[in-house]
Amino acid sequence: MATTHQLTPPHLHHPSASTTPRVRATASLAHPLLLSRRLRLRLAAAPQSRSPCPRRGAMSVRSSLIDPDGGALVELVAPPDRVPALRAEADALPRVRLAHVDLQWAHVLAEGWASPLRGFMREHEYLQSLHFNCVRLPDGGLVNMSLPIVLAIGDADKDQIGGNPDVALQGPDGGVVAILRRVEIYPHNKEERIARTFGTTAPGLPYVDEAIASAGNWLIGGDLEVLEPIKYNDGLDHYRLSPRQLRNEFDKRGADAVFAFQLRNPVHNGHALLMNDTRRRLLEMGYKNPILLLHPLGGFTKADDVPLPVRMEQHSKVLEDGVLDPETTIVSIFPSPMHYAGPTEVQWHAKARINAGANFYIVGRDPAGMGHPTEKRDLYNPDHGKKVLSMAPGLEKLNILPFKVAAYDTVAKEMAFFDPSRSQDFLFISGTKMRTFAKNGENPPDGFMCPGGWKVLVDYYNSLQAEEATPVPV
Amino acid sequence: MATTHQLTPPHLHHPSASTTPRVRATASLAHPLLLSRRLRLRLAAAPQSRSPCPRRGAMSVRSSLIDPDGGALVELVAPPDRVPALRAEADALPRVRLAHVDLQWAHVLAEGWASPLRGFMREHEYLQSLHFNCVRLPDGGLVNMSLPIVLAIGDADKDQIGGNPDVALQGPDGGVVAILRRVEIYPHNKEERIARTFGTTAPGLPYVDEAIASAGNWLIGGDLEVLEPIKYNDGLDHYRLSPRQLRNEFDKRGADAVFAFQLRNPVHNGHALLMNDTRRRLLEMGYKNPILLLHPLGGFTKADDVPLPVRMEQHSKVLEDGVLDPETTIVSIFPSPMHYAGPTEVQWHAKARINAGANFYIVGRDPAGMGHPTEKRDLYNPDHGKKVLSMAPGLEKLNILPFKVAAYDTVAKEMAFFDPSRSQDFLFISGTKMRTFAKNGENPPDGFMCPGGWKVLVDYYNSLQAEEATPVPV
Repeated sequence: MATTHQLTPPHLHHPSASTTPRVRATASLAHPLLLSRRLRLRLAAAPQSRSPCPRRGAMSVRSSLIDPDGGALVELVAPPDRVPALRAEADALPRVRLAHVDLQWAHVLAEGWASPLRGFMREHEYLQSLHFNCVRLPDGGLVNMSLPIVLAIGDADKDQIGGNPDVALQGPDGGVVAILRRVEIYPHNKEERIARTFGTTAPGLPYVDEAIASAGNWLIGGDLEVLEPIKYNDGLDHYRLSPRQLRNEFDKRGADAVFAFQLRNPVHNGHALLMNDTRRRLLEMGYKNPILLLHPLGGFTKADDVPLPVRMEQHSKVLEDGVLDPETTIVSIFPSPMHYAGPTEVQWHAKARINAGANFYIVGRDPAGMGHPTEKRDLYNPDHGKKVLSMAPGLEKLNILPFKVAAYDTVAKEMAFFDPSRSQDFLFISGTKMRTFAKNGENPPDGFMCPGGWKVLVDYYNSLQAEEATPVPV
Repeated sequence: MATTHQLTPPHLHHPSASTTPRVRATASLAHPLLLSRRLRLRLAAAPQSRSPCPRRGAMSVRSSLIDPDGGALVELVAPPDRVPALRAEADALPRVRLAHVDLQWAHVLAEGWASPLRGFMREHEYLQSLHFNCVRLPDGGLVNMSLPIVLAIGDADKDQIGGNPDVALQGPDGGVVAILRRVEIYPHNKEERIARTFGTTAPGLPYVDEAIASAGNWLIGGDLEVLEPIKYNDGLDHYRLSPRQLRNEFDKRGADAVFAFQLRNPVHNGHALLMNDTRRRLLEMGYKNPILLLHPLGGFTKADDVPLPVRMEQHSKVLEDGVLDPETTIVSIFPSPMHYAGPTEVQWHAKARINAGANFYIVGRDPAGMGHPTEKRDLYNPDHGKKVLSMAPGLEKLNILPFKVAAYDTVAKEMAFFDPSRSQDFLFISGTKMRTFAKNGENPPDGFMCPGGWKVLVDYYNSLQAEEATPVPV
């Protein structure tokens, strides 16, 4: 297995690993979507506590996991006993209404995915992110921070805030979700932000259209204090494990290596082959208990991506069908919105998983990429993502695992690693081709995807077509 | 004096400083432009040797200067005894013709301004520069490298090179100037390069028009071996001191601090005030012999900038008139082309001066900035340059000196540091206003610029107008 960073044998990497008691969760959280389908996947019990440090002291396990960026996980949800006082305080503060994407970023910040950030970026963090894809710690060290995590406001909000140091943040439905403290307001240089983040200013970038182009001309940074854990009430909140919850679960399972697989597409058997092969190789390297974090992205995605609930159902089928081993797999939702910023964004995807305890990261062709919005080509060179990831300041401690190419082996009638010596036997099925099959009700070759997972996709595209065919009242 | 990085007292910063013998150059190089005008400025003797390490061993001075990036100055000019063999070798190699700007970059690389780069960037260096504004050393450390120093070639050149590991580089006039070894050819993603370097893709960026838009679709990187020191034969080559030559001169003068002033405009008395004030403050801080490097940029500039020969004549008048002290000032030409890339480029300007021995860098409002090419505003936030510079990875060892604002004091009738308590007394004279004065033959207020320097500008604009008025034969 080619790795870009040096792989350290587990006993060196994790001095405590060999003496760490392997503790299994004895109770599993009821997991409606999966357990109802005989799923044996053990999910971490989602703590109901709103404490910034849930279950601290409850674990007697010494963790052998990688440290979060900055040394400690930054958690910004207020303890429950502070909430009444915070609500009273918020009543007297100027208010800013968050868009849906802003709320997703508040969620990301609140749980420490962006550790050591303590809130929406102030200008000094924004500039470092924009120019260097990293920010400096107080001790002079660098942590990776490739996407600006910023909150835009308009002139009216700015005027309303005036010289107030603190601002209440309302969710899209109007309820107060957080207080932003010691705020700093600075110009939102949209063109420059877009150019430096995406490497293009072409019209039609999904995240720009959603969250930048029509956003305000100012950015407001500050320290975030979130009143309650952010929930979406979409039936999937129990999948949204925080970095703390994931770390607890990895420790409970006695993980001595965690390998993360970021995805925003259905899982086919080529993905599964890769994940299973990665585990096998980690075992060969001497790790005793590598755990897979199968980590679909749950925030904003572009209109033609498969929606999150459909993907989650598809993933559950893949586990149900035994394609992945539930004993060594955790499925959870990564709450971040998607930028489609290719080599810039893949760093964020990897960095956030360090904070959740992953020390191995699988990276494929053209991660976080898409077609150029106005030209007939990929927006990014498909190889740049893994190259940039392997060079990124602040990610030295993460082991990068380049994706091996899997394709459909027409002889073996299964997904297999591509063998160039008999390339004529292999069939490449792109995401676009897969979606076309599903839309047209055609079946992909046997062995491409487990039948249960495939049916989820076919049903979804059928429902879309039914919707399109339904006359809309005028 | 506000400094962003901690200022270390000289005896701590340079342990050898107090015991370093202060050696003065006893012979000055004849300097036609300046000495003919009674200039007492002592310039370093320009060594005639073509050795990569000119004068090594000739100096008995222990240097107290800051180390070059990567620890050693990279010099890529072949020793003279190798040149015949290199010429013979070049005859058998595929050839690439350099544009003028490419030759300027070859010059920059050859003398070690971009240390530790050993040639035009290969892809791994290019990607790090583009995404992180820095490149990693073999020991894992980072050095700053904010501008891609790359060589573009077209399809025909690429085909001609084929699998050849080495390529001969011809100057714009056709003569072989260098060999590029162990070349790597990779795609020139122009749109992304422009967006990430300039923070915009708007049409009309001078460097893009000059060197990127019509350049080839491939980049070629490799190790550079330059046959002879690059000369321009424009009467100014003696001003083009290499980092090695500058370091030798600083050592000869016993400099224990070197403060660099990058400029591409005429020097007015506000600049001079700032430079003299900086020296005074460095003396107050305990430095015994701070030397000013007055370092006009000599490579490509946009059409409406004052041309290099005029600027050099203007600078010589400023020294002649005693506005700056020739004993503690070195005027030299920085051979780099100008990108006008604002906060990205100012890092390059600072980094290159570290390699020449400067440990203090003066930074002003909107460094390396310009007007937005298609909108009525500055392309960059004028404060971002100094902020980004102060945060840049790899520049931690450089002391950043933010420019204090000088303006014309109408009471004292001289340039003075702006005093906000009597702002009505001050007149701000922008570069545009200065050029308008000179173009219209009007005089700026007394004390704005020394009369000799002003006359150089007026003569230049008069000659331009005369040229415009001359009928062109058809």
